[in-house]
Amino acid sequence: MTRYAEHRALARSLGVDAVALVPGPNFVRLMKQDFHSHERPLVLVIPADGPVAAIVPNLELASFALLGFEGEVFDWRDQVGYADAFAALARHLPLRSLAVEGQVMRVFVHHALMAAYPGLTIIDAERAISGLRLRKTPDEIAAMEGAIRISEAALEDVLAEVRAGQTERQIESRLVQALFHHGASELAFGPIVAAGENSALPHAHARDVPVRAGDALLFDWGARHGGFCADITRTVFVGHAADEAHQVYETVLAANLRAHAITRPGLTAHDIDDAVTGVLEASPFADRIRTKTGHGLGREVHEGPYIMRGNPQVLEPGMVFTNEPGLYKVGRFGVRIEDDMLVTEDGNRSLTQMPKALQIVG
Amino acid sequence: MTRYAEHRALARSLGVDAVALVPGPNFVRLMKQDFHSHERPLVLVIPADGPVAAIVPNLELASFALLGFEGEVFDWRDQVGYADAFAALARHLPLRSLAVEGQVMRVFVHHALMAAYPGLTIIDAERAISGLRLRKTPDEIAAMEGAIRISEAALEDVLAEVRAGQTERQIESRLVQALFHHGASELAFGPIVAAGENSALPHAHARDVPVRAGDALLFDWGARHGGFCADITRTVFVGHAADEAHQVYETVLAANLRAHAITRPGLTAHDIDDAVTGVLEASPFADRIRTKTGHGLGREVHEGPYIMRGNPQVLEPGMVFTNEPGLYKVGRFGVRIEDDMLVTEDGNRSLTQMPKALQIVG
Repeated sequence: MTRYAEHRALARSLGVDAVALVPGPNFVRLMKQDFHSHERPLVLVIPADGPVAAIVPNLELASFALLGFEGEVFDWRDQVGYADAFAALARHLPLRSLAVEGQVMRVFVHHALMAAYPGLTIIDAERAISGLRLRKTPDEIAAMEGAIRISEAALEDVLAEVRAGQTERQIESRLVQALFHHGASELAFGPIVAAGENSALPHAHARDVPVRAGDALLFDWGARHGGFCADITRTVFVGHAADEAHQVYETVLAANLRAHAITRPGLTAHDIDDAVTGVLEASPFADRIRTKTGHGLGREVHEGPYIMRGNPQVLEPGMVFTNEPGLYKVGRFGVRIEDDMLVTEDGNRSLTQMPKALQIVG
Repeated sequence: MTRYAEHRALARSLGVDAVALVPGPNFVRLMKQDFHSHERPLVLVIPADGPVAAIVPNLELASFALLGFEGEVFDWRDQVGYADAFAALARHLPLRSLAVEGQVMRVFVHHALMAAYPGLTIIDAERAISGLRLRKTPDEIAAMEGAIRISEAALEDVLAEVRAGQTERQIESRLVQALFHHGASELAFGPIVAAGENSALPHAHARDVPVRAGDALLFDWGARHGGFCADITRTVFVGHAADEAHQVYETVLAANLRAHAITRPGLTAHDIDDAVTGVLEASPFADRIRTKTGHGLGREVHEGPYIMRGNPQVLEPGMVFTNEPGLYKVGRFGVRIEDDMLVTEDGNRSLTQMPKALQIVG
């Protein structure tokens, strides 16, 4: 039962009776397997002391048995519903307080817990629970580098073929096929392929709109491989780039390079964002800033450490985050350059290796 | 503001002050656009009476503006956090009770609402809110048929190439590439490609294990297209099929065909599952039953109506559900045959059209 030691210690430090995990990144890290969740609750309960227990949909029992879970399992069938299983759990394992992953657990599970445990105090311990994933192991970093190599190879294929007249959606489809061709097990997220004015939306969706000569063409994409995500952005220009585009691009690139220059253990997430965003603020394009510098990357495409002003999180070796400054002019175009960076013992290493000089394609 | 009429009526019928929607299928149906959610709350509040309001991350404001939302927007920046925006919403729009989508909204949003509205009663109205999506429009059915055509074409490509010795994961990668090649905008879900004993797990994951002659090879896959999902399963055999495999296959096929024979408006979800599962129960393989007959299909790959015993939901024209009986013998093999079925005015129509006779491949 030593595999639960971290979570037991966490429950004690949070002053709660137990930690609950639902399928998702924290669950996978612990149990080495994910589950489809949909409408069926599956919950692990790890008490500060004493045996673990779980709620498992009956149709997942065979898959769940492969995990070697050591505790009592309360299964439930679709035809009967899950309320009885939660009630049985509550009789088996009384709790007054429970820490949950607030960004993963959904309200229907929260309600099922409250119904089974009247008066239960549920605290959102997302930050603490996911915090166990902040420092990546060498194996985890290797998996992430695999995801990044796949992603870079896929974009290279696509850039060699991009032409004015192709639609954003056609280019997106090519990119996705290339990601799987190069070995992605999944997409880390639905890629963004956004040209011209669409590139000015930080979270754009590809349209059935042809790319035109002179357009900025922004790719934000990443494979998932070995359970880990890549998350990269490159902005290229189709055919040619206007003077303003060059100036904006060089500003964003300078901001991006600033993070590479300064990142080392002991600085805070605040320090990085402050320095990177400072470069953008000192430029003539300060009114085009829309986002913080980045976010942690690992089993999830967005996780800690969040690289933003006001975040006192101290950087430690093994942390991985995105460095993605951007400038966005609504109705015109946006530029973002995003690398995935590893904090090392004495500085940092860029896991992304694609060139970043302004590139004209097509 | 007429686009909110259904949700206002729902709030009144539920006896709550308002309905809240977060990004996801109900949000997309209403607003025609989805948003990445991750760690950033975005919430629409639709009161029974009076103006709508929303909480929106600042970096999404430009995308959100495209929706033509008519109400007050409370935006928040990463550097400041979202608590103030929720507090401002609460001053602007007092509420004592709120209906939410329990299977979509996550606990951190629930907690933010409770912090801003002390004493608020939050009810899980997943069933009622998602119930607005039960009856599909002709446009929605056409989108789903598009997703199904893409999915069927992709599997045909893959089946022509499958050989013993290829791994589950290699075959899965080919299937995914074929889905995007044929026009998928996304995957409806990560496909299942499971051979031999792995096919006995209803929600298996592809392994780096070669497919062997004589294996059952189960594909559960689907494209997303125009916002709608396909969800199909076919089980084929590699090289040859043992006598028992033939018997199991014919039993599952008979159960699947039973749903096609009887489905019509006026029957309940219970009636369908009872008839289909009844075929399996009357066979020599009753101990291999693991799942209910199916689930609704639409913007989500699992939604209502859930086709299971005890569900009194009356079938109505425009409802679409999966018909996916299966038999699973742990350690040996599983067979599942899944079609997507539309309830019509006078019966049903199978949206899936791939052949279902036992097929030997490779």
